[in-house]
Amino acid sequence: MDGQNGNSRIKRLVDEIVDTYEDNSGINFIDAANLPVREKIIESLDLLVEVMFPGCTGKRTVTRSNVRFVLGEILCKVRAELSDQIELAFRHKCRRDNCPNCDCRKKSEKVTDELLASLPRLRELLKGDIEAAYDGDPAAESFEEIVLSYPFVHTITVHRIAHELYLRDVPLIPRMMSEAAHSKSGIDIHPGAKIGEHFFIDHGTGVVVGETCVIGENVKLYQGVTLGAMSFAKDERGRIIKGEKRHPTLEDNVTIYAEATILGDITIGKGATIGGNVWVKQPVEPGVTIAMTNTSSLYRHHKPRARREKETTD
Amino acid sequence: MDGQNGNSRIKRLVDEIVDTYEDNSGINFIDAANLPVREKIIESLDLLVEVMFPGCTGKRTVTRSNVRFVLGEILCKVRAELSDQIELAFRHKCRRDNCPNCDCRKKSEKVTDELLASLPRLRELLKGDIEAAYDGDPAAESFEEIVLSYPFVHTITVHRIAHELYLRDVPLIPRMMSEAAHSKSGIDIHPGAKIGEHFFIDHGTGVVVGETCVIGENVKLYQGVTLGAMSFAKDERGRIIKGEKRHPTLEDNVTIYAEATILGDITIGKGATIGGNVWVKQPVEPGVTIAMTNTSSLYRHHKPRARREKETTD
Amino acid sequence: MDGQNGNSRIKRLVDEIVDTYEDNSGINFIDAANLPVREKIIESLDLLVEVMFPGCTGKRTVTRSNVRFVLGEILCKVRAELSDQIELAFRHKCRRDNCPNCDCRKKSEKVTDELLASLPRLRELLKGDIEAAYDGDPAAESFEEIVLSYPFVHTITVHRIAHELYLRDVPLIPRMMSEAAHSKSGIDIHPGAKIGEHFFIDHGTGVVVGETCVIGENVKLYQGVTLGAMSFAKDERGRIIKGEKRHPTLEDNVTIYAEATILGDITIGKGATIGGNVWVKQPVEPGVTIAMTNTSSLYRHHKPRARREKETTD
Repeated sequence: MDGQNGNSRIKRLVDEIVDTYEDNSGINFIDAANLPVREKIIESLDLLVEVMFPGCTGKRTVTRSNVRFVLGEILCKVRAELSDQIELAFRHKCRRDNCPNCDCRKKSEKVTDELLASLPRLRELLKGDIEAAYDGDPAAESFEEIVLSYPFVHTITVHRIAHELYLRDVPLIPRMMSEAAHSKSGIDIHPGAKIGEHFFIDHGTGVVVGETCVIGENVKLYQGVTLGAMSFAKDERGRIIKGEKRHPTLEDNVTIYAEATILGDITIGKGATIGGNVWVKQPVEPGVTIAMTNTSSLYRHHKPRARREKETTD
Repeated sequence: MDGQNGNSRIKRLVDEIVDTYEDNSGINFIDAANLPVREKIIESLDLLVEVMFPGCTGKRTVTRSNVRFVLGEILCKVRAELSDQIELAFRHKCRRDNCPNCDCRKKSEKVTDELLASLPRLRELLKGDIEAAYDGDPAAESFEEIVLSYPFVHTITVHRIAHELYLRDVPLIPRMMSEAAHSKSGIDIHPGAKIGEHFFIDHGTGVVVGETCVIGENVKLYQGVTLGAMSFAKDERGRIIKGEKRHPTLEDNVTIYAEATILGDITIGKGATIGGNVWVKQPVEPGVTIAMTNTSSLYRHHKPRARREKETTD
Repeated sequence: MDGQNGNSRIKRLVDEIVDTYEDNSGINFIDAANLPVREKIIESLDLLVEVMFPGCTGKRTVTRSNVRFVLGEILCKVRAELSDQIELAFRHKCRRDNCPNCDCRKKSEKVTDELLASLPRLRELLKGDIEAAYDGDPAAESFEEIVLSYPFVHTITVHRIAHELYLRDVPLIPRMMSEAAHSKSGIDIHPGAKIGEHFFIDHGTGVVVGETCVIGENVKLYQGVTLGAMSFAKDERGRIIKGEKRHPTLEDNVTIYAEATILGDITIGKGATIGGNVWVKQPVEPGVTIAMTNTSSLYRHHKPRARREKETTD
């Protein structure tokens, strides 16, 4: 492109853009310690998925004789790399809070070791989740099929890991992890959500599970289900009070069908069923089924017409 | 990190994790033949998309003089690589079923050749699908725009390929293919679904099409539509009977608007229209339109108020 | 695989597939000038995101002393590479329209320079969008968290860039950009949509915003919201008239909850609220709230039963 002219135009543009950085509004990170790097976090997550389902990627042959070496190598790698990312997150927060003296490195190693120590327990939870998927979906041919091709498996694995870091107040990284999973599966589970055993989400695109949700055992959700919040408390200065319980509690054995929206700090009782496409803002008693009114009353008759004449939308 | 201490901690952890592998619950693949590799399958799919829409990636210049060489090279590559993956899938199943004597290699080559032989027919089907997209969407400027930027195109291409493998009882791979497409587009079509000519899904995020769906010609779906199952037969031991028809049949010229949920083995008659956000569990006669009741009856009047005072959710 | 036999089979297959290219139906690009390349466009978008949120990827340390050099380098790169892609798009259109004499190179450089010149303004808009996200979501801990983990941020950044190119009649690329964002976030905003200041979409999976939407200030959408079209004008030859306004107008301070579907060229008045899961085809007056009828009337009582006996779907 035109050299001289182009160059001076770029220089002017650089000045104008730098001006927009001046107010330091928290959306530029100039002179900031480096932030955690999404790609590195995804790398560690991929390794942890291999720990949970050894051999599932088909890339490594895992045998009884090499399994301890494979695992040891993966865990050493995750320990080094994930603790680095966690340190970046802690350092960023310290800087923002003007707290120069805390030992971010030590905290990061402690948290990472605690996460690793929880892996055997998480693995047991994940076994239950996959069992729930198999029991709940007639299209499932085998456990292997579920591990290899159900988006839920990756998402719940990432959630159970991210939740451990959330419980230990790691900044930024739990949400970066949940977003990495959301981007792949369309399932958006906030790392704060407490999720019981034998959980299953089928298909999953569009599911949202909010930060303060509490979900019991044997709960099943379908695609497009929202467990969201609705109107919440503000302090005397009109600012949202953070940390309040504002999302639903689902007791054991609840099933929620596709596209239902459940909002607020309400309880859906044990064994209740919520039909597809309804909007629920009030508590639901145990064992009750909620459904949209009979659709037969909604029919309007037309005589059939050819496709080309039909209404179309985009 | 701390060497000695860290190492012994990792060793202990490895033991604990290996213990969780012992029950061989079907979610670890130790000592198993290697499984099909997702990345390899995606590579083959990308090559097959190039065959269907030569030149569409802009990476290769395809001309009348080189087209046969380009095609020949791609097809040889797919033949070798996809048949390898299919062999891994067959071998994994044989191992599970204790069937050591069948000729997985030969079966894989046969199935791969049959898939390749079907490509000219699939290409004709895809032409029709893209025509349906152009006819059905006023925002579509050209066929090129559709091929380059409609998520539906990739998804239906993958579906028509995966369906051929599903019909030939290839384990694991058809679902891995459909999930690869689902992850990109948010459209989740089970490879078992039978889909007629001139099919179109606009936008598509959140669409679910179940395994035993049968879809006629000129059918159009919008984002968030579910064609799912509802309550199905179990055998005398309480296990789901696999393979039963449990999803909807859509006759020719049916249109289903955004977020509608259609459940069960019901028939939506020729030319019927299902409005947005409804939940349908009963058959719909030809030519009928179903819609949510008039929303005007749902109004609750408030006086306008400023944004900052409004309810907010997350 | 079997050499001789396989080779002749591939040769025959090549012939059959080439036959399907003959009708030049606009879905093959043989002898066409190369098309814009998706990966190159995504590369340029990633660089522009770095300009908008310097340091956000954590990959480059941006400091007060190096910021001008980093920016200058990025902008030169985008200027060269994006203008190449834009040129490919213009050339493809010229070829189709038999317009061999226009200066595609010059047009591409002009458009690229105009896009770059708009970046300071777009940056101000994006600041407002991130403020809106922070104000609107109680789960948001910091602006940094929003930039690093809200899918909305990437999507609105891409939209505001793609919209500039749409306004300048660049073929293909604006839609390729919006689809690149859609594929990551599940949010599908047509580059034609006019979107005011302080916009926010929470979670976002399944959102569709149509080409001729006009959106005011301080508008908030939740996951699964559709702003679509419904029945539109055709010319005397029965072809859709392109470019007509066919999507909703949302005035300032409108909020639309999860999964609501708003269709047609209707106005949703200032400060109105649309509840979740409703289907709206008529204008809504300012300040009004629309919601689904009371769900308590929809209850059907069952006695609680154990999970294993419940209906299941897939």
